[in-house]
Amino acid sequence: MKSGGSKVVIGVDLGGTSVKAGVVAAGGSILYQNKFPTFADEGPSKVIKQIGASIRDALKNTNGAQAEGIGIGAPGVVDDDGVVKAPPNFEDWGEVPLKAKLSKAFPDLVIGVENDANAAAVAESKFGAGIHIPNFLFVIWGTGVGGGIIMNHKIYRGPTGGAGEIGHVTIDYRGRRCNCGNIGCVEAYVGQRYLSRRTAERLKSHPKSKILELVGGDPTKIEPVYISQAAQMGDKIAREILVEAGELLGVAIAAVMNIMDLRISIIGGGISAAGDFVMRAIQKSVVHRVLKPLRKDIQVLPAQLGNNAGILGAAGLVL
Amino acid sequence: MKSGGSKVVIGVDLGGTSVKAGVVAAGGSILYQNKFPTFADEGPSKVIKQIGASIRDALKNTNGAQAEGIGIGAPGVVDDDGVVKAPPNFEDWGEVPLKAKLSKAFPDLVIGVENDANAAAVAESKFGAGIHIPNFLFVIWGTGVGGGIIMNHKIYRGPTGGAGEIGHVTIDYRGRRCNCGNIGCVEAYVGQRYLSRRTAERLKSHPKSKILELVGGDPTKIEPVYISQAAQMGDKIAREILVEAGELLGVAIAAVMNIMDLRISIIGGGISAAGDFVMRAIQKSVVHRVLKPLRKDIQVLPAQLGNNAGILGAAGLVL
Repeated sequence: MKSGGSKVVIGVDLGGTSVKAGVVAAGGSILYQNKFPTFADEGPSKVIKQIGASIRDALKNTNGAQAEGIGIGAPGVVDDDGVVKAPPNFEDWGEVPLKAKLSKAFPDLVIGVENDANAAAVAESKFGAGIHIPNFLFVIWGTGVGGGIIMNHKIYRGPTGGAGEIGHVTIDYRGRRCNCGNIGCVEAYVGQRYLSRRTAERLKSHPKSKILELVGGDPTKIEPVYISQAAQMGDKIAREILVEAGELLGVAIAAVMNIMDLRISIIGGGISAAGDFVMRAIQKSVVHRVLKPLRKDIQVLPAQLGNNAGILGAAGLVL
Repeated sequence: MKSGGSKVVIGVDLGGTSVKAGVVAAGGSILYQNKFPTFADEGPSKVIKQIGASIRDALKNTNGAQAEGIGIGAPGVVDDDGVVKAPPNFEDWGEVPLKAKLSKAFPDLVIGVENDANAAAVAESKFGAGIHIPNFLFVIWGTGVGGGIIMNHKIYRGPTGGAGEIGHVTIDYRGRRCNCGNIGCVEAYVGQRYLSRRTAERLKSHPKSKILELVGGDPTKIEPVYISQAAQMGDKIAREILVEAGELLGVAIAAVMNIMDLRISIIGGGISAAGDFVMRAIQKSVVHRVLKPLRKDIQVLPAQLGNNAGILGAAGLVL
């Protein structure tokens, strides 16, 4: 079926392993989707080639609709000019003017480039859990802890595009050392690496946990996805670990709410999918820790778009 | 000397003890200033009368210049409609529509009402240390720890006017209980009450500190102003205490900078006047704790307007 005169945009989700491009209609439906390897360890020219290939493939699959623009969500800091800076796990990247390069390659199309967590926040704002919420903090809780702030239905980027770094809010000034060099960042308590290590420690005294079953008895294989799965299967230790982590995440969310006068947080990423009990743990912690006038209005909601948030948010940048 | 056709605004600084009104010229000079008792314990009608009296007195002293508007900085949360909510130490206040009431009393003048910390931030932005700085975090470090965020030379109020509450950013999720009910707020470590108590504890083993001299040997009389004075006189313990407090304040400032993508903080309030060593302690702590891309640009600067910040910031609301 030809869509005739209808208009679409291309949403590109750039990750360290794969780059995915989708053909997205104005209402947020994904009409077509592909997936190419990123080759992030082969340097920026190769990566840009792969991005170009995924876009060209998507443009060939618009089913007759006219593509109006290309939006890209990329890891790392993205400045106002669409320069992508130091995305983790990308070799020899430094600073790459991705927007300028794509504008050259696709001169007839509007190009938007944004940090991936910000893009996912845009996705939830335009098409997901935040569609009727003008102001909220989006948190992506997976390998690390990232975030994006939506103000008046738009992404708040800050003066240089780096806003929303909730993962590096201190929750204990004398606490654990984080990968970023700081001490006591919330990511050092609830990010993948730390959560897995802490779980392995804890399972020494709980050898019957389903978590161990899921990793074939090898505690070095523990990842949050297995903790999450075990929790869904009813494993008590797994639930305890995620409740505690949710409470700690809530401390950082409350700090952001106090500073920015926000009341609603939408939580995405792999760990958030473990179940409503995680949302409840975060909510309880946030309510305890925000200033009194905010308490009655606090809402912690699960994200709705899952793995599609990347493509949809990127598309949302130019829709 | 008559100023003839020149224009001025009235800036009003409402405090729990006194209400001060000033006649402020466009460039930020205060041409006249008064001071009336607030009578905060006699309820809102009395307080509003006192505000009216201070404004009328100022209007009589414009030296012939035409008054264009009245700006008021008030404690408590101030919403978008100029309703002042629950200012601490004001009896029976609840919520008072201060802007509406003053618009009725002074129908020919533009009225602006803002939270006092936000007003002080505006003052530093328009007339003080922040005049050339588009984006910064203003911190007022005195009895409590308050703040205001300047974005693009304007106050960032958040969705309901409550933004900038840096005093209640958690720095230790298992830490001290704060007045606000939360645990581990930075105000519970560096605010007047806690700082004074901690200092009294510490002086038990340092009986020769100049701080004790300044309070006549009575540790219950310790206030930050004396710690600050003793530090200026070279007292080692006083300096140590303020350096430690500055480092803790820096933890919360760094969290705000990470979240909002800011690099500059301007510090006002009584304790900040202790000397440059306090600014250096805060700066060092912030640099250690912000994300790497921000570090080289961090600046912690002293406020420039001192006690005049209230009147000037209020005036700045309508200038």
